[in-house]
Amino acid sequence: MSEVPPVDLVTAELHGSLEDPALTSMNLLNEVASRFPGALSFAAGRPTERFFDPEVVHSWLRTFSRHLTEERGLPEEEVRRTLCQYGRTKGIVHDLIAQNLARDSGIEADPEAVVVTVGCQEAMFLVLRALRADERDVLLSVSPMYVGLTGAARLVDLPVLPVISGPTGIDLDNLVAQIRKARQQGLRPRACYVMPDYANPSGLSLNLAQRHELLALAEQENILLLEDNPYGLFHSGQGTPPTLKALDSGRRVVYLGSFAKTVLPGARVGYVVADQRVATADGEVGLFADQLSKIKSMVTVNTSPIAQAIVGGALLENDFSLEQANTRERGIYRDSLNRLLTGLHSRFGQHPGISWSAPAGGFFVCVTVPFTVDDALLEHSAREHGVLWTPMSHFYSGAGGTKTLRLSVSSLTAEAIDEGLDRIAELFTEQMAVKVAS
Amino acid sequence: MSEVPPVDLVTAELHGSLEDPALTSMNLLNEVASRFPGALSFAAGRPTERFFDPEVVHSWLRTFSRHLTEERGLPEEEVRRTLCQYGRTKGIVHDLIAQNLARDSGIEADPEAVVVTVGCQEAMFLVLRALRADERDVLLSVSPMYVGLTGAARLVDLPVLPVISGPTGIDLDNLVAQIRKARQQGLRPRACYVMPDYANPSGLSLNLAQRHELLALAEQENILLLEDNPYGLFHSGQGTPPTLKALDSGRRVVYLGSFAKTVLPGARVGYVVADQRVATADGEVGLFADQLSKIKSMVTVNTSPIAQAIVGGALLENDFSLEQANTRERGIYRDSLNRLLTGLHSRFGQHPGISWSAPAGGFFVCVTVPFTVDDALLEHSAREHGVLWTPMSHFYSGAGGTKTLRLSVSSLTAEAIDEGLDRIAELFTEQMAVKVAS
Repeated sequence: MSEVPPVDLVTAELHGSLEDPALTSMNLLNEVASRFPGALSFAAGRPTERFFDPEVVHSWLRTFSRHLTEERGLPEEEVRRTLCQYGRTKGIVHDLIAQNLARDSGIEADPEAVVVTVGCQEAMFLVLRALRADERDVLLSVSPMYVGLTGAARLVDLPVLPVISGPTGIDLDNLVAQIRKARQQGLRPRACYVMPDYANPSGLSLNLAQRHELLALAEQENILLLEDNPYGLFHSGQGTPPTLKALDSGRRVVYLGSFAKTVLPGARVGYVVADQRVATADGEVGLFADQLSKIKSMVTVNTSPIAQAIVGGALLENDFSLEQANTRERGIYRDSLNRLLTGLHSRFGQHPGISWSAPAGGFFVCVTVPFTVDDALLEHSAREHGVLWTPMSHFYSGAGGTKTLRLSVSSLTAEAIDEGLDRIAELFTEQMAVKVAS
Repeated sequence: MSEVPPVDLVTAELHGSLEDPALTSMNLLNEVASRFPGALSFAAGRPTERFFDPEVVHSWLRTFSRHLTEERGLPEEEVRRTLCQYGRTKGIVHDLIAQNLARDSGIEADPEAVVVTVGCQEAMFLVLRALRADERDVLLSVSPMYVGLTGAARLVDLPVLPVISGPTGIDLDNLVAQIRKARQQGLRPRACYVMPDYANPSGLSLNLAQRHELLALAEQENILLLEDNPYGLFHSGQGTPPTLKALDSGRRVVYLGSFAKTVLPGARVGYVVADQRVATADGEVGLFADQLSKIKSMVTVNTSPIAQAIVGGALLENDFSLEQANTRERGIYRDSLNRLLTGLHSRFGQHPGISWSAPAGGFFVCVTVPFTVDDALLEHSAREHGVLWTPMSHFYSGAGGTKTLRLSVSSLTAEAIDEGLDRIAELFTEQMAVKVAS
């Protein structure tokens, strides 16, 4: 027998994504969090756990079964097959999702244009895989950008060109400039990724005029818009302008949906609405959704019908309105956001060097400070002050965000927010003293 | 407003996989099946539906919850979080899977080397994504080969070089020849994919000597083996030789597991055991499983903990033995296979032009005939004779399989097998008459 070698593989001979910051930063942040389990965490963008209840999960599953029997008239054997066997690649709750979109988001979606996915992440991955034909293809994204987007793009070797966010959520002049510059370089900009409502990580939202302008610009420049909308229902007051997809008369928008925050993260069910018409080599024309479905069949085959049934049951029990189903949650997030903003004001309102965003909803607030914010400071903060947050630099592909931190309030109680802010104030005071001293 | 264009995208500008036979053939076969819902189907490789029961699913979920509470001692809040919240990327039933592997397959797996995935398909995808670093990388696979493997490879632009199966499941001389030829061409063969037990589609199994030789060859040629084992528990008699992974003393084998046939397709839970040691650019050494986990975090984030809990409950209720849990199913598949083989013998035993494989387990039998077997004949068979099967040409990347069809017995009753064989006999008689006449 030959001696067992100490190393079997090296990442230098594995896919480049494995050494990419997009894939390693998530790990790093989780790793810091796991080493300081006692720290208060403004880092996790997880939904509140206050109403988690496995009995409700059982009940949703039964509700969907009853729906199959009573409303769709399926015989018992067919109900069992629908829940337990391999199933339709595009999913079994596509029609219920279409009803939810009509009810909550003003989107009239053809159920055949819906692909149910393993969370919104798979939806994003499928779209990027389809759009990346060769090395000329590039994606645009508002920067700072969601790490899940950057990571999925990296897996399919699709470069992401940053578009300036600015104070309003997107700098449209910069978007046009980036598109044209890319084309001059022989590149093929395919789409621009955007979270129009309470974006992760910036917290910013696009106003109605910007939404119309962005759609017109997509038409004019012949690109798609990838609209990701996990936080739209969590407005603090009057709600949000219509989604891009609701305003989309030219099939420019691919809509990415998630039930992680509105139903249950543990179901891992999301979806994509892809109603674009695609011509194949043999001249047939079908839906982009059907192309995405072909890719999905080679990634996850189909989304667990049991997981889909859980989400389907939740939709059925709430008359298809997740806006209505999340009344309690919306109240909690609104109160938490207000408490955080009030707490920031009372602690740092007099300090000219510290500023923060004031989003009208969602989970995230960005705080800009007069000292460097990096992973080393995060670790120091966790160890010495017992508080976690996210350095904004993780959301930039190049330089950027080095003096900003992201605070998430979604999974903290009011008391934890106050205590966490006290600890952050200690950290800030300490760091500013260091700065003055040095 | 500009006029809405009739077509928004063309596949020529989307990823090449979308026009690839690997991704379109699955669709084509499903499409034929859906147009002839009344036809008897030897096409689907689905497990029997006889014991599907949503109440059992509820019970498995409760069993796993109780396990968290009673055996792991988690407080109620932590149980709810484990089932409902986002969770560990590598999964929450990894330790139970390791116990199952020890019990049923003689595999001693470090639970940390297990990544729980959305079905075995995602496991395959993650491994191929990791191994395809650049255009020099190639995969080897016994041909005829599983379409899910070809499709996943196509998604990451990884060419698959066919290795001759021959009558024994793998031609090891051909494997060596293919590896060396590829290296002479400047290519980098990374791994060979193999189903050692009752392979899909050939039905063939490797004997113990071949398994040892294959492992020695992998060591000698410095490649990995991707062992896929969905059918190993469904032996007709004495069981199977040890898995490659059980014999793997040099960490050459990446083991791909599925619960679709042994627990429930609708859970969509599979896994990969990847205990290879990987050195990263900064010199740290970790498990290949952790690299796969990084990729998974950008494809599906994590496998639904509820779906995992269902599988976990099934493992707990069966003392970790799926060999034991599938006693009834194994009996059904054995009887079905015997009935099919007996039926083929009684109908075609006297015909020298027709032959078939005689596997000792699994779902699949291949029948070779003296006329051309293609998609047109399948459609004719469905329309005129009311019987579906799979043309073997779908399992070859180039030419091959043009006179062979695959029959699956996994989801047919004894009566349906007899009736289906009568219909197939009609088709064969008709086709041989055409051939004689032409």
